[in-house]
Amino acid sequence: MQPLIETDALIIGAGPVGLFQAFQLGLLEIACHIVDALPRAGGQCVELYGDKPIYDIPGTPRTTGHGLVESLLEQIAPFKPTFHYGEQVATLARQTDDRLLLSTSAGTTFLARTVFIAAGVGAFVPRRMTIEGIARFEGSKLFYHPDALERFAGQDVVVYGGDDAAVDTALTLAGQAKEVTLLFRRDVFNAEDALVARLREAVSAGALKLVIGQPTGFDGAQLQVATPDGQVIDLNVDALIACLGISPRLGPIADWGLALERKQIPVDTERFETRERGVFAVGDVNTYPGKKKLIVCGFHEATLAAWAATTIVFPGQSIPLQYTTTSTRLHTLLGVG
Amino acid sequence: MQPLIETDALIIGAGPVGLFQAFQLGLLEIACHIVDALPRAGGQCVELYGDKPIYDIPGTPRTTGHGLVESLLEQIAPFKPTFHYGEQVATLARQTDDRLLLSTSAGTTFLARTVFIAAGVGAFVPRRMTIEGIARFEGSKLFYHPDALERFAGQDVVVYGGDDAAVDTALTLAGQAKEVTLLFRRDVFNAEDALVARLREAVSAGALKLVIGQPTGFDGAQLQVATPDGQVIDLNVDALIACLGISPRLGPIADWGLALERKQIPVDTERFETRERGVFAVGDVNTYPGKKKLIVCGFHEATLAAWAATTIVFPGQSIPLQYTTTSTRLHTLLGVG
Repeated sequence: MQPLIETDALIIGAGPVGLFQAFQLGLLEIACHIVDALPRAGGQCVELYGDKPIYDIPGTPRTTGHGLVESLLEQIAPFKPTFHYGEQVATLARQTDDRLLLSTSAGTTFLARTVFIAAGVGAFVPRRMTIEGIARFEGSKLFYHPDALERFAGQDVVVYGGDDAAVDTALTLAGQAKEVTLLFRRDVFNAEDALVARLREAVSAGALKLVIGQPTGFDGAQLQVATPDGQVIDLNVDALIACLGISPRLGPIADWGLALERKQIPVDTERFETRERGVFAVGDVNTYPGKKKLIVCGFHEATLAAWAATTIVFPGQSIPLQYTTTSTRLHTLLGVG
Repeated sequence: MQPLIETDALIIGAGPVGLFQAFQLGLLEIACHIVDALPRAGGQCVELYGDKPIYDIPGTPRTTGHGLVESLLEQIAPFKPTFHYGEQVATLARQTDDRLLLSTSAGTTFLARTVFIAAGVGAFVPRRMTIEGIARFEGSKLFYHPDALERFAGQDVVVYGGDDAAVDTALTLAGQAKEVTLLFRRDVFNAEDALVARLREAVSAGALKLVIGQPTGFDGAQLQVATPDGQVIDLNVDALIACLGISPRLGPIADWGLALERKQIPVDTERFETRERGVFAVGDVNTYPGKKKLIVCGFHEATLAAWAATTIVFPGQSIPLQYTTTSTRLHTLLGVG
């Protein structure tokens, strides 16, 4: 059991709006932790259009997903938020002292005065295999979209999937693993032509094996596969790598009793608060009359949500609006004093 | 009488929010005109903190008033809004066909389907002299904070005022005009020490005259002045230049029946529309529950107001939300196709 982290604010989601949430909280002297299912900041913005142009960020005639996220990370750096990457927030529960207890998929627990759900269209998580009982091998024998492939050196590896990531992973492993098998349900791939050409070459050269079929069972050592001609074969497996795509899923947030409307969390437009006091929702995940799923709107929502949080974090105090142009207090916080 | 300008949208105020309003309208294919009382874009942002740092524009870790306005002008350039500088919108009246008729201080008239009041704390206009009947000389014998001083060459000029602008104007004219008199109500100036020192020198050298007193009458040729010792003197005047400061005034907007609350215009948070259909208010000039006078909030307000305008400009049409990242239609509009 890891120690409980007490914090004034927990932000769920490190996309552009979650990052700017940390900035507005920082200006109001509210420190925060940020959790994201991905291994890095940026969320949808980086996953889906990292290198694509963005033209509608006010005052930024042109940037990219990566560029915007880099700028936001620089902007929030003075406030030193603590990032928890590769974790998905799983549970949320109100405590008797009114604080919110949250736990993540990695076992991290937070006791937070305020929570900001900036989860966008959901956590970007790998699509899982659905064979019964297979989940228990995750992390030991079964891996989804692993980053580092060196660990599989010298092993018998089966890569399951047919897209760019699957083919690329199989090709990369061909030189490192003992034996590499690419498994896909049909002999047509959803990958770039060049990758598929390299795949065919590698198969011809005997550098990797190609098996067409559907996995039907896995005991941690043998992967059972049903082939198109009605046979069942067994593949020896030290490691099974599944690359079935990464798709956004709202996940456990849907179970928190926030009265979702078509997968969106309803909020008011004064505090951008959900029906749970102290739980705010900002960016693409929320809904209210007039809502447009635009980053520029999320920035505003995060701003008013941060102000609303002051009524919980600093109860009874009246916080004056200060401007970064003139406030020496804000200059000190920003480190530009 | 100038020709009537028909337009889908008229924006009042060329500050950051007014400029971004033009951008969001442009993405929705609504062309616009922009009126501002100042001779240039930027409004309060440039007038009050042109060279001061701004740290809280999302995705822009540091800019200045000038920097932000330059970026916004670049961003909206593809939509080619028509600017009307140095004019203040004076009247607003609903026409029988539901459009809005507006006229400016310069006699320009607009017939607009939608109006966006982005007037901030008001138009930045020179403080006027209050002598009865003096307004009729404005532009012929009386000038407020004139930009070009060459026109006064060879004339008898009285500069009225005691701040930097007044002293600087008098000193600049000393070499060009026939005779220059600086008039101020007392012999203590609100100007920089260096300017005042140069003033004293110029007076000693006979390059300009200094008169202490209050103007009490003006007939276009003679300026009547009451001096501190109870006398009344007359000054010969070809041109009277008044530099009494530039201060923001909401001005005529206050008389448009928009139910102002403490000089703010109430709007809803779905359309950011005033009580007058088709008249929107965005940025510092508006108010609603939770309102914070921050540029980031104005950007959001302008975004939703632009969407609301589509229901008036394109009635009955359902406009899909498109992203500048992926929409080829938007790329064409932005000239990046």
